[in-house]
Amino acid sequence: MDKETMRHWLTKQAELAPEQLAVEADGHVSLTFLELQTESEAYAKKLVHIGVKKGTRVAMLATNNVDFVRTVFALSYVGAVVVLLNVRLTNEELTYQLEQSKSELVITTEQLREEKQLDIKKQLTFQELRSLPEANVTVRTEISLAEPFTMMFTSGTTGKPKAVVHTYGNHWWSAIASVLNLGLTDHDKWLLPLPLFHVGGLSILFRSVIYGMPFYLVERYEKCHVFDVIHEKEITIASFVTLMLRDFLEQLGDAPFPEHVRTILLGGGSVPETLLDEVRCKEVPLFLSYGMTETSSQIVTLHKKDIFHKLGSAGKPLFPAQLKIANDDEDGVGEIYVKGPMVIERYANDVSANEKSFHDGWLKTGDLGYVDEDGFLFVVDRRSDLIISGGENIYPTEVENALMSIDGVSEAAVVGRNDEKWGQVPVAFIVLEVGTSLSEEKIKAQLADKLASYKLPRAFYFIDSLPRNAANKVMRHKLKERLVP
Amino acid sequence: MDKETMRHWLTKQAELAPEQLAVEADGHVSLTFLELQTESEAYAKKLVHIGVKKGTRVAMLATNNVDFVRTVFALSYVGAVVVLLNVRLTNEELTYQLEQSKSELVITTEQLREEKQLDIKKQLTFQELRSLPEANVTVRTEISLAEPFTMMFTSGTTGKPKAVVHTYGNHWWSAIASVLNLGLTDHDKWLLPLPLFHVGGLSILFRSVIYGMPFYLVERYEKCHVFDVIHEKEITIASFVTLMLRDFLEQLGDAPFPEHVRTILLGGGSVPETLLDEVRCKEVPLFLSYGMTETSSQIVTLHKKDIFHKLGSAGKPLFPAQLKIANDDEDGVGEIYVKGPMVIERYANDVSANEKSFHDGWLKTGDLGYVDEDGFLFVVDRRSDLIISGGENIYPTEVENALMSIDGVSEAAVVGRNDEKWGQVPVAFIVLEVGTSLSEEKIKAQLADKLASYKLPRAFYFIDSLPRNAANKVMRHKLKERLVP
Repeated sequence: MDKETMRHWLTKQAELAPEQLAVEADGHVSLTFLELQTESEAYAKKLVHIGVKKGTRVAMLATNNVDFVRTVFALSYVGAVVVLLNVRLTNEELTYQLEQSKSELVITTEQLREEKQLDIKKQLTFQELRSLPEANVTVRTEISLAEPFTMMFTSGTTGKPKAVVHTYGNHWWSAIASVLNLGLTDHDKWLLPLPLFHVGGLSILFRSVIYGMPFYLVERYEKCHVFDVIHEKEITIASFVTLMLRDFLEQLGDAPFPEHVRTILLGGGSVPETLLDEVRCKEVPLFLSYGMTETSSQIVTLHKKDIFHKLGSAGKPLFPAQLKIANDDEDGVGEIYVKGPMVIERYANDVSANEKSFHDGWLKTGDLGYVDEDGFLFVVDRRSDLIISGGENIYPTEVENALMSIDGVSEAAVVGRNDEKWGQVPVAFIVLEVGTSLSEEKIKAQLADKLASYKLPRAFYFIDSLPRNAANKVMRHKLKERLVP
Repeated sequence: MDKETMRHWLTKQAELAPEQLAVEADGHVSLTFLELQTESEAYAKKLVHIGVKKGTRVAMLATNNVDFVRTVFALSYVGAVVVLLNVRLTNEELTYQLEQSKSELVITTEQLREEKQLDIKKQLTFQELRSLPEANVTVRTEISLAEPFTMMFTSGTTGKPKAVVHTYGNHWWSAIASVLNLGLTDHDKWLLPLPLFHVGGLSILFRSVIYGMPFYLVERYEKCHVFDVIHEKEITIASFVTLMLRDFLEQLGDAPFPEHVRTILLGGGSVPETLLDEVRCKEVPLFLSYGMTETSSQIVTLHKKDIFHKLGSAGKPLFPAQLKIANDDEDGVGEIYVKGPMVIERYANDVSANEKSFHDGWLKTGDLGYVDEDGFLFVVDRRSDLIISGGENIYPTEVENALMSIDGVSEAAVVGRNDEKWGQVPVAFIVLEVGTSLSEEKIKAQLADKLASYKLPRAFYFIDSLPRNAANKVMRHKLKERLVP
């Protein structure tokens, strides 16, 4: 018997709880599991009509909307692989990912098709999708945990985006790990204000169909709106980035924290100091999570009860994940390795990245950290000096590569600067070629096509040489010290 | 990477929540997960000292007690297989199961050793176990879902007990299916008044360590005691058989149903008619479950909200289990097939039973039923006219075989008679050989060694011939009609 085979999650949930609320979204949209299933199956048949089949890679280029949700499930009903594109990427970046993923079709919105002008023949807006006829086929009712389901890109240490393919199993186990950690009640409703094209947002879709739990899809983040939704829709769990927590607490003012919200799940690993006091005195039920695309969302989580008791910790590895510190120094600091069924087995078509990142069943995160005597993980240094800005990951190497491709730039180093609003923003240190003069404006203009706007450095510092260590490696921490705090 | 490998559940939970309450039991016993782990590891080292190793089959012959719990985990720390014996079986029945399971050691209580006088050299009481020295070894910290964990016997259609081996994966998935169905909160505490040697009781142990949830172990069922425990210990979920629900409601009298009890999980498939009114007016949060040893506890469950709406139904197959009706007649009634990762793949060493019971990944339950238009299962006839008496399964064939082994008995048929207290009790129809006279007392005396007392017929009807159909099969339903209701 194939233990990896199970009934399609949405089909199963539509059978178990057809009348149960599945999705709510802006504009008074509300769908039950049966409705979501029926509509997703209809979309699947429309996609089959235009030639999508098992294994076809189909890219999604869209901001959050309910059609996005329907389409993800529609593609899974066909067995196609969903390639998730970050809408903030430039045309050049998107083209690279479309090529690497071998996407045969892009499903997008009117607005993004206009805006991006992608050089790919097969593009389809949601509106066009809806108006297609349905093929006369029956969609599948079973999936296998071993099958690929979604694909997204992560830049990592080399600066070259690596393709992460999540199997159904990765998403399944991530949802199971989360329920064993956070529990589940009949009243649960999860707020989804994060982009569906990141794994942190996408994973909520799968929790919903696996748990039989509704979620509220925020189409466009706006602080007053989210505040109202949380109250009016009686949200019990919200996935937030720091900015959103700050906004929520600001909106709340002197009012007590709403009782019906039992969990705020905050990505990024540590509670921002500027919010500490408020979290404490309002008894915000804050869970901090540590994870990456490769781990299919959170893999280490700090429980609300330990937030102040273990300040600065990322928490403990979720059941059934495992964690170890490799090659640790005398202080116990070493590279963080994780493993578990929610962790991908390898990158797609990237032998050198795989050799670098996977060892004996463990994912080498590239982050440095230690585990204290009570088993709590502390992350002391992010992989490749990762900059997290408003929930988006920025890899310095990628920005540095773009800078160095500009005529006249000899060397470049990018580091994160603390920022009240975004958490961090990238700033660049540049060494020009001798005899060259290049203005900040000219550099910016040349970067604009290459890098999504959130990756663009907010400041440029022209210096004579980069500080390097004996191994000739740039010492980014020395550069950080030069930044005015 | 081996997706099937994970950290030992108890080790993991002791790391995640060392101070969390794990077990409470009669006599003010109370253990945290760290304590349970430490003590189970110590027992493991004692067992290693006397030669228990990975793969050794070790039988448990005991009623519920905390040492039973420690020993199950101790054996799992060694990688031994736990053979669970029903203490109500006769010496003859136990001997058969010990031989079939190739058990090398029996762990038991003083009292049961005296009482059973088993003909096996290696026996160890819990007291003896505790006084053993610990081997100087490190116990394992990882288990594989594919490994065998526990073994128990089920009689089934042939009357010959079949060995059911549950892997760690079977128990894991059973626990996951349950949490997706029933949810999980910080306050949950599960009452375990069922024998640990049945899968319905045993499975609560694994839910506890996987969820990080305490359970209360009832050592000896006594209605006033259980009533007190439920109130004093603030039980939120209780696994009951019908008798226990009846007792609880009787004890409750006019008092309202306790608010902290959010779920009563009742094995056996349908709500007893005599309790219907009380369940309705007290709003008992009753979940009915259908399952068998082969499915590692419940696999189909009727939600409390559907109890009256779908009266008589067994419910819907749990996520991620599947169900189908095979070879159905014009009314849609056919054999119930189930599959899923909580279902065993085969019986141990029993080719003919495997051929009969497994097909293409499905377990053929032998039960007859249909699925209504809303997807609810209705069981219309139990496999091999299974008799369920006070939570124990009695297979007529087994009792009939015992009867027919008595000199003078020509034919025998056993059916269930409804019983106010036990649900059902077995009664026997006997055809004597011509010219023979045999009293009820003589038959009873000869059965006593062969059958556990709960399997002994409560009444004997001597008749001239058994009603048979064209295929010469005994029509048990005709015999049932003869019973005074």
